[in-house]
Amino acid sequence: MSYFDAASSLPLHPVARQALLAALDDGWADPGRPHREGRRARMLLDAARESAAEAVGCRPDELTFTPSGTRALHTGIAGALAGRRRVSRRLLVSAVEHSAVLHAAGTHEAAGGTVTELPVERTGRLRTDALRQALGDGDPAALVCLQSANHEVGTAQPVAEAAELCWAAGVPLLVDAAQSLPWGPVPGDWSLLAASAHKWGGPAGVGLLVVRKGVRFAPPPPADERERGRAAGFENIPAIVAAAASLRAVHQEAAAEAERLTALVDRIRDRVPELVPDTEVVGDPVRRLPHLVTFSCLYADGEALLHALDRAGFAVSSGSSCTSSTLTPSHVLRAMGVLSEGNVRVSLPPGTSRGEVNRFLATLPEAVGSVRAQLVPDAEPVVVASGPDGVTVDALGKRCPVPVIELAAVIGTVPVGAVVTVLSDDEAARLDIPAWCHTHHHDYLGESEADAGATAYRVRRAE
Amino acid sequence: MSYFDAASSLPLHPVARQALLAALDDGWADPGRPHREGRRARMLLDAARESAAEAVGCRPDELTFTPSGTRALHTGIAGALAGRRRVSRRLLVSAVEHSAVLHAAGTHEAAGGTVTELPVERTGRLRTDALRQALGDGDPAALVCLQSANHEVGTAQPVAEAAELCWAAGVPLLVDAAQSLPWGPVPGDWSLLAASAHKWGGPAGVGLLVVRKGVRFAPPPPADERERGRAAGFENIPAIVAAAASLRAVHQEAAAEAERLTALVDRIRDRVPELVPDTEVVGDPVRRLPHLVTFSCLYADGEALLHALDRAGFAVSSGSSCTSSTLTPSHVLRAMGVLSEGNVRVSLPPGTSRGEVNRFLATLPEAVGSVRAQLVPDAEPVVVASGPDGVTVDALGKRCPVPVIELAAVIGTVPVGAVVTVLSDDEAARLDIPAWCHTHHHDYLGESEADAGATAYRVRRAE
Repeated sequence: MSYFDAASSLPLHPVARQALLAALDDGWADPGRPHREGRRARMLLDAARESAAEAVGCRPDELTFTPSGTRALHTGIAGALAGRRRVSRRLLVSAVEHSAVLHAAGTHEAAGGTVTELPVERTGRLRTDALRQALGDGDPAALVCLQSANHEVGTAQPVAEAAELCWAAGVPLLVDAAQSLPWGPVPGDWSLLAASAHKWGGPAGVGLLVVRKGVRFAPPPPADERERGRAAGFENIPAIVAAAASLRAVHQEAAAEAERLTALVDRIRDRVPELVPDTEVVGDPVRRLPHLVTFSCLYADGEALLHALDRAGFAVSSGSSCTSSTLTPSHVLRAMGVLSEGNVRVSLPPGTSRGEVNRFLATLPEAVGSVRAQLVPDAEPVVVASGPDGVTVDALGKRCPVPVIELAAVIGTVPVGAVVTVLSDDEAARLDIPAWCHTHHHDYLGESEADAGATAYRVRRAE
Repeated sequence: MSYFDAASSLPLHPVARQALLAALDDGWADPGRPHREGRRARMLLDAARESAAEAVGCRPDELTFTPSGTRALHTGIAGALAGRRRVSRRLLVSAVEHSAVLHAAGTHEAAGGTVTELPVERTGRLRTDALRQALGDGDPAALVCLQSANHEVGTAQPVAEAAELCWAAGVPLLVDAAQSLPWGPVPGDWSLLAASAHKWGGPAGVGLLVVRKGVRFAPPPPADERERGRAAGFENIPAIVAAAASLRAVHQEAAAEAERLTALVDRIRDRVPELVPDTEVVGDPVRRLPHLVTFSCLYADGEALLHALDRAGFAVSSGSSCTSSTLTPSHVLRAMGVLSEGNVRVSLPPGTSRGEVNRFLATLPEAVGSVRAQLVPDAEPVVVASGPDGVTVDALGKRCPVPVIELAAVIGTVPVGAVVTVLSDDEAARLDIPAWCHTHHHDYLGESEADAGATAYRVRRAE
């Protein structure tokens, strides 16, 4: 079995395991108690904080351990917004942030604040011109949130440049460093930072929240005396000790491992489009995480593909609409404007061998082929209108990727310049039909409302 | 070293340790992923939930794992209040709840809700007549919070009776079961329940929140898809598995261990007042936790006592004002109206031997004596006024327990029926002077404002 879903979670690093076992014996007491056991727990906690702070590049008293990366983001965003409440209630976030950031933004909006989503390039990289414009439009901002690298497509974000723009505007920048911190400290003059230990081989149950000295911060209630009021609840010291130890360990290994995995990912990026027709590799090819690559396969169901790869011995992830319970495609892929069909995210754990990657590449074509074969529609596309200017296909009730499959089947039957209209009630079609047109060089003319909650998507055959 | 602070935290139970080690290998992946590793993690999580639910006495789908007991309380209270928001915004809590409950109540109040504190007997037990009255006064309640047993004095609360009253009034009851769940399920028809694994030998980082079917509940934002929206952040599966395993294990041992520790605590309750003069054992002598006893030693500083016992090899806790950073005495002792001076909480972990308890009893008199000796005031009490009706002592700037020591020294010098007035600016005097009068059978006449922010406490010599 090859586990290629490192961006979700990693097994415990051997150093973390060792540290955890030792700290289970010495770190179970309440560090707030003055007795011997309490003082011993406090010493372990203090040492872990110093170690983690050094790895992050901050002062120990700027670093709080939270129960998860999600909680670090929730607390960091709420606390920074509350601290700046009198200046502004406007939050700026990139459109491709993790759902934890977007959920916190939603809470802010529900409480009367405003949220501006900053657009990204087709690679997923923040458009810094949009950030510059938003910071300079006369409406002051309370906080900017930007990930250091995207969790779905691996694109590195221009954090240092964003931090400079924020600094000049006097607005704090919160960096979600969950995906990149395992690879090294985040550069630039950011104000707040959040991360999650199980992404670097630490145990679950530990997040980091860094709030730089001088940043206005009012922790969200209820009050609690632990972790300087920034993380309520009994400190999870054994896990914290293990998290700090493994962060140091992975940083020591990071440079060499990044070089090795970057080459393996380049190989996947190069080979997948050659091996599997109608596939789009997404995300920035150069400014990216070393270990992560995402591609989408036309005419394939992402969830089926994930299961086929799992059966073949490869654990991967998918941002396809088909895999989610909401039936809407990943907001990241949507913001990038790229295909979500048959989406596969490969994220290599440290130590992945070239042999494993080669086996994956050898397996992939058959896996995609088998999924595509299952999806050959039972029936012909239902053409409900046909004329000299084009045809209308009724794909109502058909789920991703069938509307695109039917569009692809029908467009070959109309003359160049004619228009195919696809009626669909599948939310994924809104993303995938334009994305398909983009990769297949047809003209996407736009969508309009049709009867019974359906949408009509219009495509002109270009060649 | 004898660790007698089980109510703060316990070392990991051997069963928990074993379960944790196994689950570190199998439970590190994201249980939300459909690949093999994710499914394996999900199976462990589901099994732990079933096991914990059976131990608590609820359905698995009623039970959520949270990052701590504090978070379970915060989420439980906020969610229940939000669910009942349209009916009422009035929260009833006993005056001796854990600070996590009181902090959540404070948040509710700051957001425009109201909070009614229900009084307790001198034993710390809820006055159910006060609950009945509050539920029947025509002003509907949103939620009632009551601990199953008090964390500072061990008194068991009338949960089943409170649940009946709440049921009749159509108001949900949230039970903070942190201290009693290690000893067995909480009886009665409660609606919500919170607990914390490190109190029963589970690891830190795991709390339980139970919300009975049919209870209106709206989880506080930000939204998160994990744990049915009730506990944001990546699930801490190895710790959850360990927590569930140790809850089962301690429940199997609970009946025998409770009987054994009840007898040891009875011994401490009986012997301490005989061995140490001017000591009050507080809390209900019968309806109580098996392993916990609290007493207060007049004319002693609680923090000094804690350190003296620590040096002598006993780790205990204290609710004295002197140990806290706020310089105000424990709200629990205050609500009970008992002495807070020289307060010591002894909470025996499972397996405590009779020999250890005997050694503690043999050590205690000398420890208290040495602390009392240090506290013999350098100077005589400053009598600033003296007349046939009594004297006034200026104890301004003197910290607990000096004001009481000076009162005790002076009262012997005035005739029976005369009044001693103590001027003090120490917050602990407000509790300790009346409590001292109660135990020494003098008449406490009350307090009034004096110059310079001081308070004048008046005591009539009775015998």
